[in-house]
Amino acid sequence: MELLDVIGVFAFALSGGLVGVRRHFDIFGILTLAVVTALGGGIVRDLLLGITPPRNITNLPLVVLALGAGLFTFFFEGTVERLRRLVLVADAVGLAAFCVTGTLTAINAGHPGMEAILVGVITAAGGGAIRDVLAGQVPSVFSPELYALPALLGSVLVDVTQRLGLGGPLTQWLVVALVCALRIAAVKFNWKSPTPRRPERE
Amino acid sequence: MELLDVIGVFAFALSGGLVGVRRHFDIFGILTLAVVTALGGGIVRDLLLGITPPRNITNLPLVVLALGAGLFTFFFEGTVERLRRLVLVADAVGLAAFCVTGTLTAINAGHPGMEAILVGVITAAGGGAIRDVLAGQVPSVFSPELYALPALLGSVLVDVTQRLGLGGPLTQWLVVALVCALRIAAVKFNWKSPTPRRPERE
Amino acid sequence: MELLDVIGVFAFALSGGLVGVRRHFDIFGILTLAVVTALGGGIVRDLLLGITPPRNITNLPLVVLALGAGLFTFFFEGTVERLRRLVLVADAVGLAAFCVTGTLTAINAGHPGMEAILVGVITAAGGGAIRDVLAGQVPSVFSPELYALPALLGSVLVDVTQRLGLGGPLTQWLVVALVCALRIAAVKFNWKSPTPRRPERE
Repeated sequence: MELLDVIGVFAFALSGGLVGVRRHFDIFGILTLAVVTALGGGIVRDLLLGITPPRNITNLPLVVLALGAGLFTFFFEGTVERLRRLVLVADAVGLAAFCVTGTLTAINAGHPGMEAILVGVITAAGGGAIRDVLAGQVPSVFSPELYALPALLGSVLVDVTQRLGLGGPLTQWLVVALVCALRIAAVKFNWKSPTPRRPERE
Repeated sequence: MELLDVIGVFAFALSGGLVGVRRHFDIFGILTLAVVTALGGGIVRDLLLGITPPRNITNLPLVVLALGAGLFTFFFEGTVERLRRLVLVADAVGLAAFCVTGTLTAINAGHPGMEAILVGVITAAGGGAIRDVLAGQVPSVFSPELYALPALLGSVLVDVTQRLGLGGPLTQWLVVALVCALRIAAVKFNWKSPTPRRPERE
Repeated sequence: MELLDVIGVFAFALSGGLVGVRRHFDIFGILTLAVVTALGGGIVRDLLLGITPPRNITNLPLVVLALGAGLFTFFFEGTVERLRRLVLVADAVGLAAFCVTGTLTAINAGHPGMEAILVGVITAAGGGAIRDVLAGQVPSVFSPELYALPALLGSVLVDVTQRLGLGGPLTQWLVVALVCALRIAAVKFNWKSPTPRRPERE
């Protein structure tokens, strides 16, 4: 799982840094967005579960990794933009890894069921939502792109398999692969999540 | 109190879901706004008081109720809009119920006085503020509509009556009725809260 | 340190109240912004460190001070605007005081090093960021104005001097003076923090 977490943190930090660069934030803003996007979901997870200080801010390698990815977008934005496809795949890996590890963290803290599922989805989608709020844009996770629903499915699967005694590394890897595949397929085939029938109004 | 909480959660979830529908969010965004509006104030309350995980995310019936109300706005937005008046009344009930239960939760956790009053107001108005921030709009609770001040009055009354030994179900119901009546009167008679004399500038 | 905290809370509350007045929020919105700007950084600091309820909401004098400053901006916005320079100096004092006290709080809670530095910066810059998000604007701390970097330097210095056994009131006052001087010089000489080379795009 740790490798997945590393990939996820790196990809999420790139996405946060890119938003900061596009908005022409300063170096502090860009690094903050990188760190918040990569680690914010896990920080909220730990606050909800009463784990203080949150593990993500005590984990030196992860923070350094997120800062490094942020610095990379600061200096090499063009490169990251060109590798957009690779970043999308890495982001899908992060989404999948975070929903699984978030759900497991809640279960291991003694909160299976609905709590674990909610916490899993928040871990996976929370960092990106905080990134967007700080950058002054509506969270992209609320747009019709199919993003949070695969994570929700993954969290449910982790919780159900644990209850059935089918949890374990193999199951977890299968769930990660499924969520990741669903997310990539959603991008590739332009799958949308359901929206209300009426047009936007004010 | 539980009945009031149920009415409040339902009304707040409707208001959150409606904002999501109007913004044309997807199903995930609409359900998230419904849940966050209905349960967010209580979640912040519990985090401030050190109650983890927050009771609102461990309370299955309340979460299901909020999700149900969100689904309802997704499918029947027109109906909810037509029942706008009823929703306003229910929202007033929720505001009143949440400021009373929030204040009492803080007092019971050993934090009477100013802390209890702050926590009560945050419980009542916090969910709506999070809803608005996530939806990319300035919190409506900061507009001149008379909304938070009745909740503030209710929290003060609960704290004072508890100190005077006058707390009890009857007092609490009276406070709920008073806050609710004030809020409905404010809507009906278009009462405004004070604003600075100078016009808006940038 | 307490005097510095008082100056900082007062200055931050003025800045929060002013944003509310400029946005033409009502009295509740203005007082909320004042309190959140002044005490929000410390509240997040305590939540991250597991100190509940956060000391800033149990500290009656500080809350009253923040409310008083908010009321002052409500009634005498013109005066505060004219004293803009004084407010900038006071804000620099607050920034310096908060990064030092935030870092020390984390160290005293048993979390030196990176955690203390992160917590110090969040304490100093967090209140202003929450103020801006609530007011519907992008956090000014992300703009090229040199604001967070002096606080970051201060937090690092506090952590390093503590490790070297050089901590103590004198060191802390020197750090406060340095951060404060850097921030004031940045305003006076229009120093900017680094931004990416490419122009803003959407």
